[in-house]
Amino acid sequence: MAGIAGPEIERLIQLLARLPGLGPRSARRAALHLIRKREELLGPLADAMRVARERIVTCSVCGNIDTKNPCSLCSDPRRDDSTLVVVETVGDLWALERASVLNARYHVLGGALSPLDGVGPDDLNIAALIGRVAAGGVKEVILAVNATVDGQTTAHYITELLSPYGAKCTRLAHGVPVGGELDYLDEGTLAAAMKSRTDL
Amino acid sequence: MAGIAGPEIERLIQLLARLPGLGPRSARRAALHLIRKREELLGPLADAMRVARERIVTCSVCGNIDTKNPCSLCSDPRRDDSTLVVVETVGDLWALERASVLNARYHVLGGALSPLDGVGPDDLNIAALIGRVAAGGVKEVILAVNATVDGQTTAHYITELLSPYGAKCTRLAHGVPVGGELDYLDEGTLAAAMKSRTDL
Repeated sequence: MAGIAGPEIERLIQLLARLPGLGPRSARRAALHLIRKREELLGPLADAMRVARERIVTCSVCGNIDTKNPCSLCSDPRRDDSTLVVVETVGDLWALERASVLNARYHVLGGALSPLDGVGPDDLNIAALIGRVAAGGVKEVILAVNATVDGQTTAHYITELLSPYGAKCTRLAHGVPVGGELDYLDEGTLAAAMKSRTDL
Repeated sequence: MAGIAGPEIERLIQLLARLPGLGPRSARRAALHLIRKREELLGPLADAMRVARERIVTCSVCGNIDTKNPCSLCSDPRRDDSTLVVVETVGDLWALERASVLNARYHVLGGALSPLDGVGPDDLNIAALIGRVAAGGVKEVILAVNATVDGQTTAHYITELLSPYGAKCTRLAHGVPVGGELDYLDEGTLAAAMKSRTDL
């Protein structure tokens, strides 16, 4: 590739290829698409990235990202202070907000405990979580972490740490995904769904 | 989503979702990844896009994109002026350059004739191609267009237009892709490969 279209395009392709979901080939296609749509897409996207880079901050209360600190969720007076939803990542927070089942506050850990990957309690936003619960007013902490080994380890670790403060710790239900077919589900999920069966 | 993380992030996600290969969900993941890697990726990518927007131009000779006009390929004195490779898009030109089988000049049409999509000869970079061949010096025009109906129509149309100038028009061979398995190939390709079989 070197020398065909100059180092500027080559650099653009290399940076695009580092986005999740884009490989070297699709990054080339994306770069060509951007250059073809210079005015409608390349320009606005470059501007949006510059704005994001300059203005987006991490909320010092919950770990969410926003253009203000505390973030819109933390500063929203209509949210219920007594329920705190603990998630691993901002992406998980967004997913729960899209489902919009709860009007609670959030706390983003920034990952899960993972001895194999060398992620310990100090690498996560756990101390701030304890501080928020210790300050009082939180009745329930919903540990909405991933249903993975690391996620569940993290949930148990946090439950232990929070036990002195009297807040109830809960976790998401396991079961059959809505719209899911039993035939395609793993045994663990099926066993959990069977165990937690409810009356019709 | 509106109101969770502010309009700046929402706009970034919407623009990213317009890249080929990224849907709304992967655009959100890409946006989060960019924001997490603010210094290493978001900043450099925004800069690379700004540079691309400002500096990349379309070559007035061949239709390639580059930061100079004429492009590096057109201004390279070591290239063979007697062979002209006609491609539909800049992506096709890059693909042929990566294969680096030829040291020829290129001509980018900007698409293929497509009556259904309303793409006629005037919408393509055909007049400039005729001009280049009419100027003399071109012995062979390789019509490296896609093996689609539109591509082949375009090839035949151009061959007709170029007939007065004495340049030989050729097309790429059809056949079994290198490394391909016969079982997975369509009948048309197999028939073409059989018809053009060569001595071992």
